Amino acid sequence: MSKVPVTGSEKKQQDPGWTDAIKAHVPVISTLMNYKATDAIGDSIAGFTVGLTMLPQSIAYAALAELNPQVGVNSTFAGVFVYMMFGSIREIFIGPSSLMALFTAEFTRDLTDDHALLLTFLAGIVEILISILHLGFMVELISSPAFSGFSSATALIIIVAQLKSILGIKYRARNFFDNFFKLYEMAPQIRPADTVVGIAGCFLLLLLRSLKDVRCSEKGEESKKSTLTKVFWFISVSKNAIIVVLFTMLSYYFATSHGSAPFLLSGQMKSGIPSLTLPPFSTTMHNKTIGFTEMVEDLGTGIIIIPIVTVLINLSIANAYASVTSLGPTHEIFVVGLCNIANSCFGAMPTSGAYTRSGVGSSSGVRTPLANFFTGVTVLLGIYFLSPFFQYIPRPILAAVLIVACMFLVEVHLVSLFWKTNKMDLFTFLVTFSFCLVVGVEKGLLIGVACDICRLIYLWARPDLVIDIQDDATHSYILVTPKLGFFFPAVDHVCSTVNEVALSHDLRRPVIFDCVNFKSIDYTAARGLFQLAEDFQKRGQDLIFINVHRKVERFGLKMNKHLKICRDKTEVMEKLLGGASKVSELDLKEIDEKILHNAENDKTKEEEFLLSRNN
Amino acid sequence: MSKVPVTGSEKKQQDPGWTDAIKAHVPVISTLMNYKATDAIGDSIAGFTVGLTMLPQSIAYAALAELNPQVGVNSTFAGVFVYMMFGSIREIFIGPSSLMALFTAEFTRDLTDDHALLLTFLAGIVEILISILHLGFMVELISSPAFSGFSSATALIIIVAQLKSILGIKYRARNFFDNFFKLYEMAPQIRPADTVVGIAGCFLLLLLRSLKDVRCSEKGEESKKSTLTKVFWFISVSKNAIIVVLFTMLSYYFATSHGSAPFLLSGQMKSGIPSLTLPPFSTTMHNKTIGFTEMVEDLGTGIIIIPIVTVLINLSIANAYASVTSLGPTHEIFVVGLCNIANSCFGAMPTSGAYTRSGVGSSSGVRTPLANFFTGVTVLLGIYFLSPFFQYIPRPILAAVLIVACMFLVEVHLVSLFWKTNKMDLFTFLVTFSFCLVVGVEKGLLIGVACDICRLIYLWARPDLVIDIQDDATHSYILVTPKLGFFFPAVDHVCSTVNEVALSHDLRRPVIFDCVNFKSIDYTAARGLFQLAEDFQKRGQDLIFINVHRKVERFGLKMNKHLKICRDKTEVMEKLLGGASKVSELDLKEIDEKILHNAENDKTKEEEFLLSRNN
Repeated sequence: MSKVPVTGSEKKQQDPGWTDAIKAHVPVISTLMNYKATDAIGDSIAGFTVGLTMLPQSIAYAALAELNPQVGVNSTFAGVFVYMMFGSIREIFIGPSSLMALFTAEFTRDLTDDHALLLTFLAGIVEILISILHLGFMVELISSPAFSGFSSATALIIIVAQLKSILGIKYRARNFFDNFFKLYEMAPQIRPADTVVGIAGCFLLLLLRSLKDVRCSEKGEESKKSTLTKVFWFISVSKNAIIVVLFTMLSYYFATSHGSAPFLLSGQMKSGIPSLTLPPFSTTMHNKTIGFTEMVEDLGTGIIIIPIVTVLINLSIANAYASVTSLGPTHEIFVVGLCNIANSCFGAMPTSGAYTRSGVGSSSGVRTPLANFFTGVTVLLGIYFLSPFFQYIPRPILAAVLIVACMFLVEVHLVSLFWKTNKMDLFTFLVTFSFCLVVGVEKGLLIGVACDICRLIYLWARPDLVIDIQDDATHSYILVTPKLGFFFPAVDHVCSTVNEVALSHDLRRPVIFDCVNFKSIDYTAARGLFQLAEDFQKRGQDLIFINVHRKVERFGLKMNKHLKICRDKTEVMEKLLGGASKVSELDLKEIDEKILHNAENDKTKEEEFLLSRNN
Repeated sequence: MSKVPVTGSEKKQQDPGWTDAIKAHVPVISTLMNYKATDAIGDSIAGFTVGLTMLPQSIAYAALAELNPQVGVNSTFAGVFVYMMFGSIREIFIGPSSLMALFTAEFTRDLTDDHALLLTFLAGIVEILISILHLGFMVELISSPAFSGFSSATALIIIVAQLKSILGIKYRARNFFDNFFKLYEMAPQIRPADTVVGIAGCFLLLLLRSLKDVRCSEKGEESKKSTLTKVFWFISVSKNAIIVVLFTMLSYYFATSHGSAPFLLSGQMKSGIPSLTLPPFSTTMHNKTIGFTEMVEDLGTGIIIIPIVTVLINLSIANAYASVTSLGPTHEIFVVGLCNIANSCFGAMPTSGAYTRSGVGSSSGVRTPLANFFTGVTVLLGIYFLSPFFQYIPRPILAAVLIVACMFLVEVHLVSLFWKTNKMDLFTFLVTFSFCLVVGVEKGLLIGVACDICRLIYLWARPDLVIDIQDDATHSYILVTPKLGFFFPAVDHVCSTVNEVALSHDLRRPVIFDCVNFKSIDYTAARGLFQLAEDFQKRGQDLIFINVHRKVERFGLKMNKHLKICRDKTEVMEKLLGGASKVSELDLKEIDEKILHNAENDKTKEEEFLLSRNN
């Protein structure tokens, strides 16, 4: 995860003009001022299609979060209208998402639906805080491989968790692998009707999905899409709605004609548009009233993790789609916070953008964030006219919708890409993926991030050292050039390598240490250099620092006055060769004397030194 | 913490010869082979002095660890003899230390002394494992400021914790600040005799300590130390022994003539040399027998943290003193593990090297690790002849010994040094120091390390970008050169800055992105660059990458074939100016065409783009 939408506009927000400031924060104004008929057409088609996707998705996600399906339906419209006003990325449609559902399930397990509603509200508050405190940069620490590993694992977990609904059995698994054990255990209770409907659902969804790749070219004219291609494409992006409607009709038929459907259905729901209400600040659990503080305690770290994941998802979508018109991450995080607060007033679960919806919106030709308006209207109309039928949606069909959506989020193809390009990326991906499955997705992601951070620290700890051993008639020396800055983790490696190199050659040979890549230095590194200089002094070998940055030099002179520093190699050469002297006064006299002195009693020193080494 | 003893010798260990291998691992052999009379004199003086320091220290540290003073005495000799055989750093004397005592107190609080003994044994095992698995590098992540903050806080905690013993009161504080509260609460119970003895002890110790700075030069001859200076110096380094003996005689006099001393004494102890025994693998607590597994559970993370701190202390001492004769960190960690196992067979608490002893040893002129032999003999003689008197050592005097020793470990002077040299070092130091006081030393150190790691990550996240806007008659372009490698945390910053710069100038102006500092690249960074290229493509602006490392280029071509890459600036200039063409075929034709194309409809594009930005 990383490249947040590019912006020259984040600066614009600081303009003094009131109208400009309002325009910058409420992008819908300038959108409307430049709105054209073509935009309206694009947005309405995209908005309508996304609405068709969102409605069945929301019921499925509620099931995934182990909440009443009503909660899913409640999450589909308020945020969409808020995003229309303030959002700046046309491809983002706020609503329930697979990750949000999974995390909600994790944090509200064994709690009430009211806890989930309160969580939505609190998540909104925390998101706004993250925006105000400019903490969005934290997600920069999550690399693409780590995020892909995390989302692939999440998708796989969802798929496996939905197998039970496809098969018509019910159990509660403790973790990912427990699912397989439970499936094996419960195998005798598998309901054939559910299984058939579920598998048929998956199959049909995949079939409809593949329609979008069908190209019907008329008269070899490929550039203009034929009407048939367009129809196929529309069927393909509306596949969820189509399949859900189809099977709901089937179960409605069974329920009305035979009294009940042969497969499990989603639960009872209120009809009509949900009403505005405050999020629940207290609830009843096990016949006991629970206050706000206690509810917050029950939700625990969820209050922090859900917003972080939301920010992560939205910035990652922004990253994938955003054009230069975006208002920057801080604004986006603020808006998603507003959306969640708005949603929580209609009894919603935590919401965010979703890759699936962004994909549908983008391929449906979305033009501006106003598409959200059409999505909202579609969803509200759907709820108004269809909500009496929602209870007839077969559970295995909801599972099929989730499975097919998640199937393409397991990014197996990345393995071969990473293998070819950067093995460390592969390592991060696999580590994150496996740990997400084994110890849970949030801990897995943290481990992935830690893994990436280790990579970066390793670069500081083991900088490349170029060692150049000069040995011609006129002068002989060893030139050591670290290729990166010099900070505490590298001290060990650099100093011992330099000593090793110096020891493995003629001890009369001076070592020149090139500091050209040290823009600054820390106390530990400075101490390391002084220690190194002392080691050299003890055995009477010369160590000369060249190309010392002013900052580093000041540091050095403050701590130790006896470092030998020359401006550059030429200067050293001149001194070593006794050539014309243009050198500064900086300790060079000392070097001079030493070189002279060394020439006299080199042999003795070396012998002495070798002797002392054996001691 | 950082620079581990420099070594060309770690390689030596791989030599095939048996004798060489043994010599490399048992350095005492080669030491003895080259042992001279002068060495023996230096070592015996140093060893004797360290022994005099260690004995009273050990009883004080046992008190600090809230263990029976006997345990302290037991920790003084076995490790010393083992280190004499295998150790390679002459300044290290294994025994009880303030940090070990503090951590032992932390992990064996509310447990039995047997737990402490088992902890010593297990710590030894874990240290050997750390050595075998080559995990010693972990301590490289602890910078000097973090370690200084940690040890300063530890020293301050010990000083404050000893105030109660100086004042003759007893309480158990929950944390650092609780001490002050308890002191205030217990003020009426302060025992005047203890207070007088304690303060007098501190005062005398400081006085004796200052003797070492007294220079008595005879006839202006400063280079040769006068006898008086030598005597003063010896009194100074033996101050602990002198004061303890003095006050023990005082309390012995009181106890024999008046029946009891007016101040608190250290507890009853066995007389004579401790006997060899296995570490306790089970114990009795609250009249219940506790087995090995349960004891290990009680000790918890102490089994890991104590060895890490031991490694930390020893490598940090090695770092401060080690000459090139050291055998490297891996060997040293192994040896300290052996020492702890040996010690645990005599009923000792966890042991390590100690700065105080190293200081005494070094200034007493230690020559080889054989000094440990003389220390061991001194300690054993001391125990043999003096142990009946140990019970008369006044508690406030032990506290005074600890306080004076710790007083100089609170490195306040570093604040001004860091302020002058590197403010970030100051930040790390202060953060580590304060958190150690507030949340405990081990968590505080972890926070300090995290703080340092953030610094290093920040460097990757916000690399310097040199932006060079060229604007002369012949060509105009923007040259962007990141000054560091390009990895995931930087993507955001770099890409948005480049876009911002490009947007704030004439959009016809091409942007040249100099990759000269990118030795390699990761997937996230590569994606960022492609996204950047796309942003530019969308607005019809040119973005050309130059000085692309072969590795990065391969990566790029595998992922996206449409990046514009030139060899270097000259090549770009030639293309931009339409000069003589020596360019490779790599997408440059495309650039050419684009530049031509841009020249034609620049105006239109710019207008269009500005319009779309306002949307």
